Amino acid sequence: MDQRLKNLDYVFGPRSVAFIGATESMRKWGFLILNNLLTGGYEGEVYPVNPNRETILGLRAYPSVREIPGEIDLAVFTVPARQVLDALSGCIEKGVKAGLVITAGFKELGEDGARVEAEMVRMARDAGMILVGPNCQGVCCPKNRLYPWMPILFHPSPGKIGYVAQSGNILNMLIGHAVKAGLGVSKAVSSGNEADVASEEYYAYLAEDPDTEVIVSYVEGIPDGRRFLEYAREVTARKPVVLLKGGRTGKGVEAARSHTGAMAVSGRLFEAACRQAGVILTHSIEEAGVTAAAFVNRPLPRGKRVGIITGGGGLGVIASDFCTEIGLEVAALSERTLGELERLLPDWWVPGNPVDLVAGLDFTILKPVIEILMKSGEVDAVMFLWIGAPRRAEEIEAAKRGRGMDISAIWKIMDQHFVEFHRELSSLMHELQVPLYVATSIDLSTDSGGSRDDGCRPLVFSDVESACRAVSAMAEYHAYRAARS
Amino acid sequence: MDQRLKNLDYVFGPRSVAFIGATESMRKWGFLILNNLLTGGYEGEVYPVNPNRETILGLRAYPSVREIPGEIDLAVFTVPARQVLDALSGCIEKGVKAGLVITAGFKELGEDGARVEAEMVRMARDAGMILVGPNCQGVCCPKNRLYPWMPILFHPSPGKIGYVAQSGNILNMLIGHAVKAGLGVSKAVSSGNEADVASEEYYAYLAEDPDTEVIVSYVEGIPDGRRFLEYAREVTARKPVVLLKGGRTGKGVEAARSHTGAMAVSGRLFEAACRQAGVILTHSIEEAGVTAAAFVNRPLPRGKRVGIITGGGGLGVIASDFCTEIGLEVAALSERTLGELERLLPDWWVPGNPVDLVAGLDFTILKPVIEILMKSGEVDAVMFLWIGAPRRAEEIEAAKRGRGMDISAIWKIMDQHFVEFHRELSSLMHELQVPLYVATSIDLSTDSGGSRDDGCRPLVFSDVESACRAVSAMAEYHAYRAARS
Repeated sequence: MDQRLKNLDYVFGPRSVAFIGATESMRKWGFLILNNLLTGGYEGEVYPVNPNRETILGLRAYPSVREIPGEIDLAVFTVPARQVLDALSGCIEKGVKAGLVITAGFKELGEDGARVEAEMVRMARDAGMILVGPNCQGVCCPKNRLYPWMPILFHPSPGKIGYVAQSGNILNMLIGHAVKAGLGVSKAVSSGNEADVASEEYYAYLAEDPDTEVIVSYVEGIPDGRRFLEYAREVTARKPVVLLKGGRTGKGVEAARSHTGAMAVSGRLFEAACRQAGVILTHSIEEAGVTAAAFVNRPLPRGKRVGIITGGGGLGVIASDFCTEIGLEVAALSERTLGELERLLPDWWVPGNPVDLVAGLDFTILKPVIEILMKSGEVDAVMFLWIGAPRRAEEIEAAKRGRGMDISAIWKIMDQHFVEFHRELSSLMHELQVPLYVATSIDLSTDSGGSRDDGCRPLVFSDVESACRAVSAMAEYHAYRAARS
Repeated sequence: MDQRLKNLDYVFGPRSVAFIGATESMRKWGFLILNNLLTGGYEGEVYPVNPNRETILGLRAYPSVREIPGEIDLAVFTVPARQVLDALSGCIEKGVKAGLVITAGFKELGEDGARVEAEMVRMARDAGMILVGPNCQGVCCPKNRLYPWMPILFHPSPGKIGYVAQSGNILNMLIGHAVKAGLGVSKAVSSGNEADVASEEYYAYLAEDPDTEVIVSYVEGIPDGRRFLEYAREVTARKPVVLLKGGRTGKGVEAARSHTGAMAVSGRLFEAACRQAGVILTHSIEEAGVTAAAFVNRPLPRGKRVGIITGGGGLGVIASDFCTEIGLEVAALSERTLGELERLLPDWWVPGNPVDLVAGLDFTILKPVIEILMKSGEVDAVMFLWIGAPRRAEEIEAAKRGRGMDISAIWKIMDQHFVEFHRELSSLMHELQVPLYVATSIDLSTDSGGSRDDGCRPLVFSDVESACRAVSAMAEYHAYRAARS
């Protein structure tokens, strides 16, 4: 990794932050982002910079960075574009290590903006200061309780997924898919115009980051395609990189140009090159977010043979169709394995894969069924597809008030079983190195009282198709890694 | 419509229900379904039938249907398969109008089961009694507070979508997509083996149902393909039919055979014929559920030109790519329209479609922007794509406890604006007959305090791609209807 990139440590783990453009004006980013930083629980020093105020949000404000008494690792910029160079000079004099330039109005507005942007980078690089942005929504590093970013009151937990996105909004939505599942973030960056540090350089940084297990990224423009692919190839040898590419079509490229001023690279050729470099390509925000989250706390499938267990036959049909359509194999089970299953399941069970549990509620059967499949050597991944419709606490309450008996007790019992069951299955899956993919449309994030940060809880998929796609992506990544080693 | 099908009125709107196989044994379907019926608030008479009990769940129990004093419109069967024929005789003697046979163990288990199933249908038809099932999970009709079905404590609200599914689990999941969005159900049936009434007959019934605006269906087996297509063609001339077909691949067909004993029809030919009959084909549970919900409270787009408004450039790139890839047109806006937009938007706005609002929070700009597009005559549909990451009440609470100021007030204000804004936009869209598609990953079902049953609130999509797919499906349906009329 480029020595320069080591300075990103000051972006994600600063001991102190100067906030240039801090304000109490409720609709300005200088308020919203500062507020996120403060409410997020950051424990280092925060120095608001604003020449017109004595205090901001209860903190002493400084007229400029030069006046701040202590050392500063990170400066956040939310001042207008025309003030950024001057503020940057101040930071350089002060010896600030890193800058997070939220401010927009640079390259994306045309030549004048591009000139200022280039000057900004020149100044920073000469001084050995690293810059994130400009035209971005900030960064986060939950382990350090650091959230100097735009999404209001959004403070995800520490986790194992690293995020790099040229769009702040898409960054939030990608992270949302992990958060919904109870997973968290190692480090996330809205990289904006990438004047100093490019996407592939963040990947290289995250490849060295011990907290990051998988990288997911949204890119619109790649000015140096060759370097992008070289870096990507290095990184994918160590960690999966899940990519969503914006600007795949002419209209998309046009939209990207006015967004980040990006010059997009041609679609199909680039996609082919990415695949060769081991990058996992996705085609929607949800697919990217969920596929990345699938890698967390789960071994890789060593092939494409899938064992499907369902709590109801229809899901088995859906899964068999979809697996076949995306190139997975519905595993043929041996007579021996079917015999073992037959001993566990009711008389009217029809032997085969998918394995329809018939009685979907019974976790005491489910666990040994999963175990038989995992130990059979006949499947590379096990899917358990569960029924369910969304139900919220208030709906359950409403139902209780209805006529008849209160059966929410059943629900609670099922839920406890599920948490317990997942804990046991997690160790089995790691022991046997056969991954398990559970899909249920029941919203476990509200219904389950189980701990979410126990490190062994894998993503539960909200639909059959996402689970199938995750098996496929992970199996392909396994094949890629195997071919390279 | 076949006169026989009129008897389905007794299935969805019975004045009284006999429950054959009622029990207090907590894990049996005879308990779970009865309990759903009772907790759902059904106001007609309910007569539990069980020869071994005096009372069940506080209601007087009867040893057989014959002993019940009053008239009976609907009999629900949860007794074992071998007892069904005898119970059915009792119903016929008693003059019961309709039967809902939950019980499994018929055609799906082979020849013996098929024989009993055929006998059951013969008996019922001779007596003029209509049968739903067997091997199904029940029905619901929220308008009548009727929920004799399997999904525990799941009581969706009245709405405009009719559901027909050969799998009960998939039925629940389809409905779940509407419920999450605050929409409801007109009538829903888990049709099981369809011994008496086939999917296409339910469509014909729902085509006449004034409460149903759109039909969505999951089918695995279609014994009479010709009749299916004939009926479908009739129905699609009046209402959209959204179809998810299980058993598109060899493995899917195999799984279907052991599930409902269905003989599947060949994939591609069938799909082509469906398209010709105006059926909207989908390929995942989510796509089917969301596409159907998209039709509710929204006019059809009269063409494929889309105006895209975003609160952030990245979403515009994603939407432009995806629209292009699925055959929609990112509309070219005239100088005049761009000029009108320019007067509203900030100086640094880059004219074009997608229209990036730059300041995403400002609903006072959003509404006139939508109006300009709708009135321009240059777009057939308007999309508004909004940022967001999921946030739940408890997360906001947790954030409040953090350091700094409480800004959850901002959140509440945004949310109120959104509800208000949606009400205004709904009338505009119906007046101008240009549909609006809003996508946001913010979970409006928990965060919004707005009423959900005001009838003018359309589905809010949870991702860009679903919204694009809905525009496409609805534009195609419009073209189909136009070509036929």
